[in-house]
Amino acid sequence: MTIIGLGLMGRALADSLLTAGHQITVWNRTAAKAEDLLAQGALLADSVNSAVSASPVTITCVTDDQSLRQALAPVHDELDGRLLVNLTSGDSAQARAMARWAEQRGAHYLDGAIMAVPPAIGTPEAVILLSGSTTAFETHQSILDGLGTATFLGEDHGLAALYDVAGLSMMWGVLNAWLQGVALLGTAGVDASTYTPFAVQMAEGTVGWLAGYADQVDSGAYPADDATLATHAGAMAHLIQESERLGVNAELPKLFKALADRAITAGQAEESYPALVEQFTQASRAS
Amino acid sequence: MTIIGLGLMGRALADSLLTAGHQITVWNRTAAKAEDLLAQGALLADSVNSAVSASPVTITCVTDDQSLRQALAPVHDELDGRLLVNLTSGDSAQARAMARWAEQRGAHYLDGAIMAVPPAIGTPEAVILLSGSTTAFETHQSILDGLGTATFLGEDHGLAALYDVAGLSMMWGVLNAWLQGVALLGTAGVDASTYTPFAVQMAEGTVGWLAGYADQVDSGAYPADDATLATHAGAMAHLIQESERLGVNAELPKLFKALADRAITAGQAEESYPALVEQFTQASRAS
Repeated sequence: MTIIGLGLMGRALADSLLTAGHQITVWNRTAAKAEDLLAQGALLADSVNSAVSASPVTITCVTDDQSLRQALAPVHDELDGRLLVNLTSGDSAQARAMARWAEQRGAHYLDGAIMAVPPAIGTPEAVILLSGSTTAFETHQSILDGLGTATFLGEDHGLAALYDVAGLSMMWGVLNAWLQGVALLGTAGVDASTYTPFAVQMAEGTVGWLAGYADQVDSGAYPADDATLATHAGAMAHLIQESERLGVNAELPKLFKALADRAITAGQAEESYPALVEQFTQASRAS
Repeated sequence: MTIIGLGLMGRALADSLLTAGHQITVWNRTAAKAEDLLAQGALLADSVNSAVSASPVTITCVTDDQSLRQALAPVHDELDGRLLVNLTSGDSAQARAMARWAEQRGAHYLDGAIMAVPPAIGTPEAVILLSGSTTAFETHQSILDGLGTATFLGEDHGLAALYDVAGLSMMWGVLNAWLQGVALLGTAGVDASTYTPFAVQMAEGTVGWLAGYADQVDSGAYPADDATLATHAGAMAHLIQESERLGVNAELPKLFKALADRAITAGQAEESYPALVEQFTQASRAS
């Protein structure tokens, strides 16, 4: 196994592989970062070409797409028949472009996104999203599973990057909505720890509806068995008024209502909440 | 038990109490809405005063605070020593003002918010938030439990209204973040039902952090054991770029980043996510 890129995350990956008993070769723009790994038995390649040639699988984890392109620029046919697993952060277009680059050099390619902090690498909490060659994933799954919970998403190389940002969006959505509630209850002297079990209950309840709402999105029909968008918009107005009257930030509530109002203007007042997806699948309007 | 207000929700409350074997008296501005209930054995009062006088407990559930004030305007000392449970939607200031009104007339007062649609009334899914007199709640809890899951929040009459909008905020936060992901994955031809299990996993994971983050908010110290706000802001930039490049709405991602950027400007770049609470506890800035 070869690791290219020895930042915090790259070193965590290398360390985890060494601990699992794998022989590894490393390469980094500044070789000094390899010292600890060499003391643990890693080999240091003298060029990126020899690093790639040393192993059937190369994992790249550098700062960004541009750094990756620079690091791999000298590589020509050394990747032929080998697997490149790119765990560098990037977007779906960069992943697909990198896949074409790798395929032109005869390489198998998996694009990945690490949803974890470096200390979690090697534990099941480290979710590692991967997309690209199914065969390559299945062949090397045992190694990838050693890095964390390796999750294969499909053959489209852009999927790992898309699931990554979509998942982070869910994370920030939950955290910000929770902070809105913490701020509101704070005005009545209720501390965050007292409020939070209720927020947890509401979040879990809502999460339980998503599978059914996903069916509505996929069918394109939004029967309001629970509440209509018009009812939601009315309650959103209460949230805005309460926030403003109490001197709490109302930007998040106002964005919620702006999206619902647009769907209502588009004729969806009597449809259920997921009808709003049509506001999300189009580019932002000037507000 | 007296029920004032026979809209969809008021009728559901009355129906649930009749089904549970309670004797009830009803009053509504337009008496025709009482017909079905009278057929089931309810009594119709000829005035709001006689309605209130007929029972030790009166539940009000009308359109809004203004309608409530109008309906109860003729009431003087009929509520003395009795309990008023107000389930009309309203904000925390209206709840506290109504509590003063009721107390001036010698009444015990509970303010409530129903987090359910009318057909759920009488089942455990209907969460009914209540705040105000602890004694009154404990005395009448068995009746209130018959309407749904009666949840007592504390003596501040404004709490039910605040928990209500805070809980809805959490609901919309989860739903909108999910729709952002559905839209992103939709660009790669991934349907909502395929994406959703991952969104559920991310939401549940995030919900699991809230208790620890609440402790940080309550202590006012935000050690970034997981990720710093600077790291979050960098990932938010990726979400914005990916959304814009794919023609997906980027307003929610941009608001996430604007809030994080302000906290960073305020010197919190190296703190953990809940440090953002200081952006939520202040009124909105012009954007």
